[in-house]
Amino acid sequence: MAKKTIIVFSGDYDRLMAAFIIANGAAAMDDEVTMFFTFWGLSALRKVNPTATPSKKKSGLQTAFSTMLPKHAEKLTLSKFNFGGAGRFMMKKVMKAENVMTVAELLDTAREQDIKLIACTMSMDVLGISKEELIDGIEYAGVATYLGEADEANVNLFI
Amino acid sequence: MAKKTIIVFSGDYDRLMAAFIIANGAAAMDDEVTMFFTFWGLSALRKVNPTATPSKKKSGLQTAFSTMLPKHAEKLTLSKFNFGGAGRFMMKKVMKAENVMTVAELLDTAREQDIKLIACTMSMDVLGISKEELIDGIEYAGVATYLGEADEANVNLFI
Amino acid sequence: MAKKTIIVFSGDYDRLMAAFIIANGAAAMDDEVTMFFTFWGLSALRKVNPTATPSKKKSGLQTAFSTMLPKHAEKLTLSKFNFGGAGRFMMKKVMKAENVMTVAELLDTAREQDIKLIACTMSMDVLGISKEELIDGIEYAGVATYLGEADEANVNLFI
Repeated sequence: MAKKTIIVFSGDYDRLMAAFIIANGAAAMDDEVTMFFTFWGLSALRKVNPTATPSKKKSGLQTAFSTMLPKHAEKLTLSKFNFGGAGRFMMKKVMKAENVMTVAELLDTAREQDIKLIACTMSMDVLGISKEELIDGIEYAGVATYLGEADEANVNLFI
Repeated sequence: MAKKTIIVFSGDYDRLMAAFIIANGAAAMDDEVTMFFTFWGLSALRKVNPTATPSKKKSGLQTAFSTMLPKHAEKLTLSKFNFGGAGRFMMKKVMKAENVMTVAELLDTAREQDIKLIACTMSMDVLGISKEELIDGIEYAGVATYLGEADEANVNLFI
Repeated sequence: MAKKTIIVFSGDYDRLMAAFIIANGAAAMDDEVTMFFTFWGLSALRKVNPTATPSKKKSGLQTAFSTMLPKHAEKLTLSKFNFGGAGRFMMKKVMKAENVMTVAELLDTAREQDIKLIACTMSMDVLGISKEELIDGIEYAGVATYLGEADEANVNLFI
């Protein structure tokens, strides 16, 4: 049993798949896993239908950024062949036929396996994302926390 | 002597160059190296002229994906300044003048140096790529195999 | 106290931010940090106003590549929502309001903290970038130097 960390910087659907498949695979092999979501990767942690009003007032620019970001994991785009969502739609159809989990399902599995999900607070400030917009049961921290986790791990990836 | 692993997720010509240069450099220093090709990175392992018929019947969507993918390593595009292939053509001309190897040459060197090349079977299913379309002498495995290799390595990169 | 290395392959403003924030954070925690700038990442090390004439004659293609590359760190584009620079402008405004440092400021901090900045000489040849165009106080080396540093480190990222 060892520890793994993954920085999830990208908000591409395919890169998110890779990140969660590695994380879930490691957790299934009894590794302790920490995923640190920063910049566009934060999109994967957004609630499908946030109801609470954000506690922190957003500036106009923060509102613009958070409005442009994909609303939740299943709205993320592919890094290649996205074609306005058609590519992701196609890929998800093949994934279903081949019994490959969607990002939303992979995220659920990550939570069931107690993978530590950390949202980068600095990126939340820059992109204008408030805690109320993110899913429950995650942690909030900065780069020092990430580095502390990485120091204890034997595999550290940036995706 | 230590071990290195590289996940090759990207199918960009320039990122493939970086991956192979690091891998070949480590192998030249007597490191054991494993490259795990997943998603778009699989393009680098495609045969230039596959003759055998794929053993597994592809669905319409899988055919679409595998048709859109670059046919082999030297057809990959740059992540920046590609301009419909003109950027790659330019870069390859400069590389030749500066004695820098192409991706196809780097792949040959990797095989000569016994770098372990693994194709991710799950990605092959999603993108509709069959074993007959990939070069000989590679291995086929999933995330558990990657994690086993990474646990033994002191440097693990995701490219 | 441990050692960290980061390969900075990307020339995206947001990925550069991530790279420098991790590097500066580690250095602030007394880690030894090496950043290895290769391909598009070299843009981050360009002088704002280079005055000296490049010592090495560039070929036409090298001139084309080096002309297309961003002139210096603050001219880099975002990997998402760049909109011809408007996205970066917006993000920098929010960053200022939230007291987040720009890439130019992060680079200054990295130098103050004695982070080792290495420019990849092979990439310089391919992209037609000469030493005179890069900032002072950096080192020049190839993949073997990177691998030597990575062997001594406990966290190695590719960004």
